[in-house]
Amino acid sequence: MFAGKKACLLLAQAGLLAPVPPVAVSSPSVRCCALKMPSYKLTYFDIRGLAENARIFLAVAQQPYEDVRLSLTFGTPGDFSTIQRPEFDAMKAKGELDISLGKVPLLEVDGVKIGQSKAIERYLAKELGLAGSSPVEAAQVDQLGETVRDIKDAYQKVRGVQDEEAKKKGMEKWFAEDLPNWVKLAEKSLPAGPGPFMVGGKVSAADLLFYTLLLAPGGIFTVSSTVSRVLTVAIAASDLVFFL
Amino acid sequence: MFAGKKACLLLAQAGLLAPVPPVAVSSPSVRCCALKMPSYKLTYFDIRGLAENARIFLAVAQQPYEDVRLSLTFGTPGDFSTIQRPEFDAMKAKGELDISLGKVPLLEVDGVKIGQSKAIERYLAKELGLAGSSPVEAAQVDQLGETVRDIKDAYQKVRGVQDEEAKKKGMEKWFAEDLPNWVKLAEKSLPAGPGPFMVGGKVSAADLLFYTLLLAPGGIFTVSSTVSRVLTVAIAASDLVFFL
Repeated sequence: MFAGKKACLLLAQAGLLAPVPPVAVSSPSVRCCALKMPSYKLTYFDIRGLAENARIFLAVAQQPYEDVRLSLTFGTPGDFSTIQRPEFDAMKAKGELDISLGKVPLLEVDGVKIGQSKAIERYLAKELGLAGSSPVEAAQVDQLGETVRDIKDAYQKVRGVQDEEAKKKGMEKWFAEDLPNWVKLAEKSLPAGPGPFMVGGKVSAADLLFYTLLLAPGGIFTVSSTVSRVLTVAIAASDLVFFL
Repeated sequence: MFAGKKACLLLAQAGLLAPVPPVAVSSPSVRCCALKMPSYKLTYFDIRGLAENARIFLAVAQQPYEDVRLSLTFGTPGDFSTIQRPEFDAMKAKGELDISLGKVPLLEVDGVKIGQSKAIERYLAKELGLAGSSPVEAAQVDQLGETVRDIKDAYQKVRGVQDEEAKKKGMEKWFAEDLPNWVKLAEKSLPAGPGPFMVGGKVSAADLLFYTLLLAPGGIFTVSSTVSRVLTVAIAASDLVFFL
């Protein structure tokens, strides 16, 4: 992480300071401008989980939105059979989550409901100027998002191994070999561009998705010598998020 | 399936007849018009697999493209250790697939390479007018695509069970209960609209993705009494594809 000044410079370079003045969400000026834009309401549990990327996109773009956090607690910590989520259960019982297959996250755009976390992310990326500057750049951003998804899927496969000893060995190999190899593949897949961002000349959802992937606990900063561009972008993106 | 005349009517209703005259790909008139549009080149093995949805989108939109089919054969049928794919191996060795993580499908748009089958599908859906008529409709189409993906993922989980007896029971349950339940959820998740199409007033990638899902061998037409709108759309979409 760097100091706020550099982050501010990065935000300016990324073209993210201009659209909305950096003022508090509740200030009159923002309320005024927000009226001209779609109203966004994002409903999810009060955890990072499947809504965090969407929240990061909204935060980086300084887009005001209604951030509805449903409670999620455990009777016995860690025991999923004792999970308590009363607001979610009530919404589901009333059919309010039918459009999102009985699940959250749920995004409402001027009252129109959209489900599926990845569809929500891609919609927001486009609307918030985080999906490149052309249809082809949008596809390149989307491709990199799919790669992040592949990497997460591969990780979950190792995490899901039932035998404890085999799982331990698998996880060690994952961080020592598999994940660095994945990121090398991702590095080689990056389109040519002016940098430092992955696609085109400004920050995109791709940068932010790699940020959430690589800066999560157990990330892969140790392979920085071989994956320079991906890491440069992840660090630059982390600075954007840190600034908020 | 219906006769060609009805399919033609559906194509017209779907707004798909207007952009490109229904003539052979190699005719001078199409060559003329194609020059003004991006040139598309889709490279994949000579199987349906991960490129079939993209091919269907291109076919339904009557969009000319270069359809490169790499050979894929087995020394011993069914034994993946004896797989032979010489053109693919040569492309990979030359680094021509680096941008797509060493894999196919690969889409080239005026020479710019895009990888990841789902990113390719979404790009084509947008460019070919198969992603709804507004950003929100595009998100609704995208959401339904994610649901198809969820359903396929759940199916692959059952197919991947190692124990043969458990797999057999799992597959029976899949077609008798799980898949119908998934489609009921999908049915409830459909946005309000004029129909018969899933999103808005014309055919979209969502309809075509459900077509490939539901009309594949082992599909779920037996549950038609409870999932009428999904099936109506799948049948309408099948007619579009049948016509080609």
